[in-house]
Amino acid sequence: MAKKLAVVAFGGNALLRAGQKGTINEQEANVYETCKSLLDLVKNDYNIVIGHGNGPQVGNILLQNNAGEKLYDIPEMPLDVCGAYSQGFIGYIIEQQFRNALKKHGYNKDILTLVTQVVVDKNDTAFQNPTKPIGPYYTEEEMNSLKEKNPKDSFAKDPKGKGWRKVVASPRPLEINNRDSIEKLAREGNIVVTVGGGGIPVHYAEPGRLEGIDAVIDKDLASSLLATQIGADEFYILTDVPKVCLFFHTPEEKQLDVITVSEAKKYIQEGHFTEGSMAPKIRAALQFVENGGKTCIITEAGQLGKPEAGTRIVND
Amino acid sequence: MAKKLAVVAFGGNALLRAGQKGTINEQEANVYETCKSLLDLVKNDYNIVIGHGNGPQVGNILLQNNAGEKLYDIPEMPLDVCGAYSQGFIGYIIEQQFRNALKKHGYNKDILTLVTQVVVDKNDTAFQNPTKPIGPYYTEEEMNSLKEKNPKDSFAKDPKGKGWRKVVASPRPLEINNRDSIEKLAREGNIVVTVGGGGIPVHYAEPGRLEGIDAVIDKDLASSLLATQIGADEFYILTDVPKVCLFFHTPEEKQLDVITVSEAKKYIQEGHFTEGSMAPKIRAALQFVENGGKTCIITEAGQLGKPEAGTRIVND
Repeated sequence: MAKKLAVVAFGGNALLRAGQKGTINEQEANVYETCKSLLDLVKNDYNIVIGHGNGPQVGNILLQNNAGEKLYDIPEMPLDVCGAYSQGFIGYIIEQQFRNALKKHGYNKDILTLVTQVVVDKNDTAFQNPTKPIGPYYTEEEMNSLKEKNPKDSFAKDPKGKGWRKVVASPRPLEINNRDSIEKLAREGNIVVTVGGGGIPVHYAEPGRLEGIDAVIDKDLASSLLATQIGADEFYILTDVPKVCLFFHTPEEKQLDVITVSEAKKYIQEGHFTEGSMAPKIRAALQFVENGGKTCIITEAGQLGKPEAGTRIVND
Repeated sequence: MAKKLAVVAFGGNALLRAGQKGTINEQEANVYETCKSLLDLVKNDYNIVIGHGNGPQVGNILLQNNAGEKLYDIPEMPLDVCGAYSQGFIGYIIEQQFRNALKKHGYNKDILTLVTQVVVDKNDTAFQNPTKPIGPYYTEEEMNSLKEKNPKDSFAKDPKGKGWRKVVASPRPLEINNRDSIEKLAREGNIVVTVGGGGIPVHYAEPGRLEGIDAVIDKDLASSLLATQIGADEFYILTDVPKVCLFFHTPEEKQLDVITVSEAKKYIQEGHFTEGSMAPKIRAALQFVENGGKTCIITEAGQLGKPEAGTRIVND
């Protein structure tokens, strides 16, 4: 029988915990722990593809670029290139730590990290109203001078009064570059790390010609699209809670074991899930099961071995 | 008949030209030109693996890290992680520009970029006498306070009086991680970008457990080792001269069409090749042909289509 194929999206927690500063030792230790949790999938003979976020990392890389220009006159790289930096960085630590965890527990599997572009549409409506803040805070004066240099850039005032930040669009991912190779490598038994940070955002500047674009792709949506495109049997979204909850953080809080597509849609409408946190995960889960996927499991890494781990989102 | 497999090491010139500041537009345009030169190999039905340098890029990344800590208190990443940043960055632009060049000229080939670790030995004698300067220049005072924090770090005074710089070892590459997958992907017809900057330097901290190490691996030596390990038929080292020369930059300058292993060794001894420039390329070429490789060709990218391109290093 063909082995099951799972796509696992690492949450921010897999890389950086609340209150941590983001030293390399902290991030390596967190990644090692998360990878250890995935050994149960390895033991159960799954083929595995890993997607991951890059929020805090690419945030730091943008600031490093900004500081490098100020102190050393090094040309600042655009957001797509900063995303590429982050894929190299995070992919490297996931590959190394997962490899170490595998060897330590006697598994002999290769793990490969692909630098991955994800295609979006320049006419995606998200570009009309960019909302994702990125990079450093600016004073109003700095912001105005930046707008003079790049009139197309948008900025938004920080609600906590820290200044202005550039905002970019979060368009829908349409096409995962090299998805056939990703699937082939995974089905041959390699663990594949890909679509880091939702993928490096690119678009067709003309037919056949890709170029980078200032945007941020939701990492769960990109992993979900990949899971669909490579025919994954299961899609795991790792987060920092064991199960999805109704009435989260209230006295009536209720953990969910299984939710159907129609229940999930109802709960979204009822406002049970926070935007920027659980709501996009539920949408990524829905996208997978509504496009032919069997099961999406939302849980925290530490639960993975347990038989009743997480919340399963399934078709009605 | 099986297709020929070529490993091509991109020189610094492929990414950044003398006098350029290193904006993304400059680097993309340079990479596009180099990739276009490789289309002749594609036309002649070679399978292709690309290695590349990262000197100026990782230099900038180290400065960006240094500046990010100073201005924004972002933890500086160690050299291995900075190398990983650079693999993501450079791999992304090579993959994108080569893909665009292929499409534009009607070729339908996939191109994949792997984040690649290369194993070195912590007991390599190079670690006893680190010589590769990296990162920012420091005053003597700054250097002393850094040495207090990290007593194992070495520093060297810049000969032009710009201050002190950290120096790291350049150990021999011993093992290319995932080389079997690199070979398989390439022989299946994918162009594979790998061992960027000579690979991310790692070593076995204990049996089976890899960890990063402060070092710089010569990119031509790493590409050469890869070429040997995957049984490449030809190994191309791209540089900024059409052919290797004797009496370079003198009135007696003489371009070489073919040199044998013993001739190459004699010329090295006679001091024809500059350290830090042509000498390491000749050594990388020798390593390839002395370990079973047929031909190494040293040339500039623009010559690749021509029948008598470059200097061929062959066995006696």
